[in-house]
Amino acid sequence: MEKLLRGAAVVGQSGGPTAAINASLAGVIKGAIDNRDTITRLYGMRNGIEGFMAERLCDLSEMFSDSEGKPDEEKLDLLSATPASALGSCRKKLPPTDDREFYDNLISLFRKYDIRYFFYIGGNDSMDTVAKLSKYVSGSDYEMRVIGVPKTIDNDLDGTDHTPGFGSAAKYIATVSQEITVDCSVYTTKAVTIVEFMGRDAGWLTAAAALPRLTSGLAPDYVYLPEVAFSMEGFFEDIEDAWKKHPNIVIAVSEGLRFADGHYVGEGTQSGATDVFGHKYLEGTGKALEIAVKEKFGCKVRSIEINLPQRCASHIRSATDISESRSCGIAAVKSALSGHTGQMIAMIREASDEYRIIYASMDVANIANAVKSVPRDFINERGNNVTDECLEYILPLIQGEIETKFEKGLPKYITL
Amino acid sequence: MEKLLRGAAVVGQSGGPTAAINASLAGVIKGAIDNRDTITRLYGMRNGIEGFMAERLCDLSEMFSDSEGKPDEEKLDLLSATPASALGSCRKKLPPTDDREFYDNLISLFRKYDIRYFFYIGGNDSMDTVAKLSKYVSGSDYEMRVIGVPKTIDNDLDGTDHTPGFGSAAKYIATVSQEITVDCSVYTTKAVTIVEFMGRDAGWLTAAAALPRLTSGLAPDYVYLPEVAFSMEGFFEDIEDAWKKHPNIVIAVSEGLRFADGHYVGEGTQSGATDVFGHKYLEGTGKALEIAVKEKFGCKVRSIEINLPQRCASHIRSATDISESRSCGIAAVKSALSGHTGQMIAMIREASDEYRIIYASMDVANIANAVKSVPRDFINERGNNVTDECLEYILPLIQGEIETKFEKGLPKYITL
Repeated sequence: MEKLLRGAAVVGQSGGPTAAINASLAGVIKGAIDNRDTITRLYGMRNGIEGFMAERLCDLSEMFSDSEGKPDEEKLDLLSATPASALGSCRKKLPPTDDREFYDNLISLFRKYDIRYFFYIGGNDSMDTVAKLSKYVSGSDYEMRVIGVPKTIDNDLDGTDHTPGFGSAAKYIATVSQEITVDCSVYTTKAVTIVEFMGRDAGWLTAAAALPRLTSGLAPDYVYLPEVAFSMEGFFEDIEDAWKKHPNIVIAVSEGLRFADGHYVGEGTQSGATDVFGHKYLEGTGKALEIAVKEKFGCKVRSIEINLPQRCASHIRSATDISESRSCGIAAVKSALSGHTGQMIAMIREASDEYRIIYASMDVANIANAVKSVPRDFINERGNNVTDECLEYILPLIQGEIETKFEKGLPKYITL
Repeated sequence: MEKLLRGAAVVGQSGGPTAAINASLAGVIKGAIDNRDTITRLYGMRNGIEGFMAERLCDLSEMFSDSEGKPDEEKLDLLSATPASALGSCRKKLPPTDDREFYDNLISLFRKYDIRYFFYIGGNDSMDTVAKLSKYVSGSDYEMRVIGVPKTIDNDLDGTDHTPGFGSAAKYIATVSQEITVDCSVYTTKAVTIVEFMGRDAGWLTAAAALPRLTSGLAPDYVYLPEVAFSMEGFFEDIEDAWKKHPNIVIAVSEGLRFADGHYVGEGTQSGATDVFGHKYLEGTGKALEIAVKEKFGCKVRSIEINLPQRCASHIRSATDISESRSCGIAAVKSALSGHTGQMIAMIREASDEYRIIYASMDVANIANAVKSVPRDFINERGNNVTDECLEYILPLIQGEIETKFEKGLPKYITL
């Protein structure tokens, strides 16, 4: 049993929004308010670590406590239903830990607000922040526990069975994929529809487009992931094969598709720009394939980029995902209270017939900056679809629905 | 009172899918089964008039009757919840009515199946089919009544207050617009997000993107419709104005935006192809503006084309729209039974404080091929947003939700 550490806490959100990131925030808030004897106050940092450095804070303990000092569950539910990061986000990458000036400046701010707990909800880059910050603080004379709560629709974080946010994105993608497949089936003319999903290095989101295969059968003909080198000739052969069965072909592709030589399929139409982390900024994998199909076959062809809605569509959420995301937030508070630091909350799937998740703490240093790809044996030999085993891994994550609260015909949100 | 006409009926769907076109089909089926003494059998034509000519028919009376011969309401509800045209669609335009061979051939098919009622669910081009067919049949010795049921997400049909399918598309668009506005607000860096909605000549769908302004306030900064000539200079000024208020700007645009000289904004990146009706096929209005903004301001800019989901997203539907769409189908049967032909069902909004719709029959010849645009006084003077009056016209059409039936985590459909 670790020694009791009494003081304030701060929580932030970083990286791209998801439909579940506010459920994790709701979990941290609930965990903090339930332990108000130890966590005297929970601050929210606006726009992540960047906003913290500018002391842009709000008092979440006060906002989400009812008149008896208990968590206001109705307000927490509304927060969970709000898409994107309610506290705002940032994409700041922290400098290496030998930049003493930067970190000492941060510590003086922690000291000023007596912050003893630091919770950060985010993806790979955010876990890098957790790793650096906890490392530096541990080597200092200031006592503070730093815990990461995973979040990414991409499902590409190592060390956890899956990531909070992925289940809702997968449910949305599978729904849209089923709708588009039905929409495209109404005409009798030969046509190809290419639907592009997010996923720079990992094909998890695109794999979810195949889910209706296990349920209604109304799924795309092919699914191409970045984990397998893309061949234009093989792609054309696949199209000709599918036409033997029906005139309307639907194809799901990942934004990050690459040829065997490592070049992106969308490179021909991309801007060449990179984001602040140096990731290559892609656009147009679907568009590039649309042009290629048009030139090769001269048939009707359309490309659809699902774009932002796959990460912010909160009107269709997985109840499993939202519940797990909140549990991860609660687990982060528990982990910090029990003395951990430099850890990320991870979900372990029990090896049993029924789907069950156990929450654990993992050393974040082993997780940050690693990418979990779709394993090769989750993809068929030809590389043009995922296996049933892959879909059976994803299917439990999209189960259950949460009723959206509507006001005057539109979903109701909370603003912090 | 017209004389009783006993015989079979046939129903077809044509043009682009919507989330409500199957609700209208459900209405026609219910109307027919409820009047089985007169309408002896209801055939469904697969893939519209094209499938009818190939005698690709199914027996809808049988499919949707319960053991007592009454309409199977549960099955009809499931049909209403299924997106796109359950009978399949086509885009065939009928030849002029002086093509006697073509029409006599059709009449011989009607005779073969003793078809005395012809119902066609579709948009502008489908009403053209209703007009031509009813005109030719009326001048022949064959008695058959031809009624059109309006359907288009575009809301651009004349003679009706609004079109079945528009309310659900508007609800989806307003929801996505609100989600994207929230998603884009999380960062503090200057950025422009351009969201492109369908609408070649009429801006109704894009106008719906502004709806959250009346509810949550979480709406795009600007809305540009094809009804007003687009000025790139004015657009740049608008962006600079919005940046004075906040760093993240969200802009909704119609695919059919045109400059004062009549050229499409997206023309630079379009293929130049036309569809089978000779309509210019557009792509890339959002993309063209993205490039223009990038060049002018060098800021972060993204364009999103909502594409097919706005016409096939059945997981979020307006209860008002679905109920009205079904009522239009039922009204079509009533209109035909009362002796009408060459008519389209229209919705008249009562002039009262409370929203109420009356169903009427209108001469289709006055309606076909006309386009109902957003009136100029529904758009502000500057031409960069819609007025509150416009939104108050749309708002009743998106009211009410229909619970989606899920099976194994995904929406459940019916296949005919």
